[in-house]
Amino acid sequence: MLLEGSCFRLAEAGARQIGRKAMAVNLSDMAAMAGQPVAAVVSVGLPRQGGRAVAEELYLGLREVADRFDTAVVGGDTNSWDGPLVISATIIGEATGGGPVRRSGALPGDWLLVTGPLGGSILGKHLAFTPRVREARELHASTQLHAMIDISDGLAADVNHICEESRCGAVLRSEAIPISEAAQSMRDGRPAVEHALTDGEDFELVFAIAPDDARKLLEAQPISGITLYHIGECVREGLWLEENQKQRRLEPGGYVHSLE
Amino acid sequence: MLLEGSCFRLAEAGARQIGRKAMAVNLSDMAAMAGQPVAAVVSVGLPRQGGRAVAEELYLGLREVADRFDTAVVGGDTNSWDGPLVISATIIGEATGGGPVRRSGALPGDWLLVTGPLGGSILGKHLAFTPRVREARELHASTQLHAMIDISDGLAADVNHICEESRCGAVLRSEAIPISEAAQSMRDGRPAVEHALTDGEDFELVFAIAPDDARKLLEAQPISGITLYHIGECVREGLWLEENQKQRRLEPGGYVHSLE
Repeated sequence: MLLEGSCFRLAEAGARQIGRKAMAVNLSDMAAMAGQPVAAVVSVGLPRQGGRAVAEELYLGLREVADRFDTAVVGGDTNSWDGPLVISATIIGEATGGGPVRRSGALPGDWLLVTGPLGGSILGKHLAFTPRVREARELHASTQLHAMIDISDGLAADVNHICEESRCGAVLRSEAIPISEAAQSMRDGRPAVEHALTDGEDFELVFAIAPDDARKLLEAQPISGITLYHIGECVREGLWLEENQKQRRLEPGGYVHSLE
Repeated sequence: MLLEGSCFRLAEAGARQIGRKAMAVNLSDMAAMAGQPVAAVVSVGLPRQGGRAVAEELYLGLREVADRFDTAVVGGDTNSWDGPLVISATIIGEATGGGPVRRSGALPGDWLLVTGPLGGSILGKHLAFTPRVREARELHASTQLHAMIDISDGLAADVNHICEESRCGAVLRSEAIPISEAAQSMRDGRPAVEHALTDGEDFELVFAIAPDDARKLLEAQPISGITLYHIGECVREGLWLEENQKQRRLEPGGYVHSLE
């Protein structure tokens, strides 16, 4: 559910972009389980003033992304009201390969990989990302994925979701985390790696696999269009950041400067 | 999607009632196709002030109705914002019997039946109705339903939806339409039958079947807890109201006094 004023500003993003995002964030959830999207239902609360034009732009954006991923928009609900724009999408999909990939199968010793550089999505990527539906399916077809999630809350928070569901811990290696150009260009006084660790809405995938499988993937880089990065390992417990060969606790909510 | 201030007033209805309704309106859509509900996803935009208490009450209401219809609440999205309360539910179900019942199979000559008295739902039924899931399934198992819809927009409007999809017309017989006690108690100067024809949110079912099948159902009244009423017939074209043995055009939006 995307809510005007909270998740986006309609005047800045435009309704077509919001339509694209509403579909893409749902497709990213489908990617996180290596699912094949099939159909979507979309409900909207439209502003009374100019609602029809907004609806048309929303629909064009929705359809653009849905079409790209062979997803049919099959229904929903259309309302007008005096409140801000609201759009809620639900995607129905099918499991692929050996079934849906969950958050709960990571094992201590697994390596953690990500599908792309992270951080600074607020500069544009949060509206214009490509959900990793195809990449997830290809990974799932070729490798035994123990656990996977899409990075919507932020790398540290989402790795922590895997840890909680898998009852394990994780060490992330600061020097190994791929940092996006956007994160490097942020001029807010926070280190770029902190953006990579805590900014949400990158919509890359992070997944846990056996070290041997990871080495093969990193060597072969078999997924066209993306590079896989090895960012850390699963351990027995705790969430840790390794920096300059020292480990310190990482808060799931983000990066902590002062704990060392 | 239910929107505070447009579809309901939170202070009047209470969050639990809104939760019940969000689930029930979706189950009614499932009933309209004689589907068996299986799972629901629910997304909410909660007020920042007191949002947690609202969420808990919403959930209790949702679960109460979902449990009654063996529907699992399997996911969704939880947000807080500065806007009014928004709740959007999607139900996934399975077709029963010979497949989903659509709006598009009505034939001229079919009889139109409804599952209960109509009108005046604003006095309470719109919040406290029972979606006709069981009744629809029983009807679908025993009779060949040509077309069906749940009455959410109003009898005239929803029969018109069947007519449009089935490319036929319909005559409704004013004297045969079952009028609820609520419609009879409305004191707004409009005839009770007008309420029965145009008030929305009764969530009864109206369906088209062959006359022989209709006679058997009306005679046997086989669905426990409800009475089936014969309210009119499908014809080749137009939407008509028969009153005092005269037919006049009925506007899909509602009852028209002055056309005769």
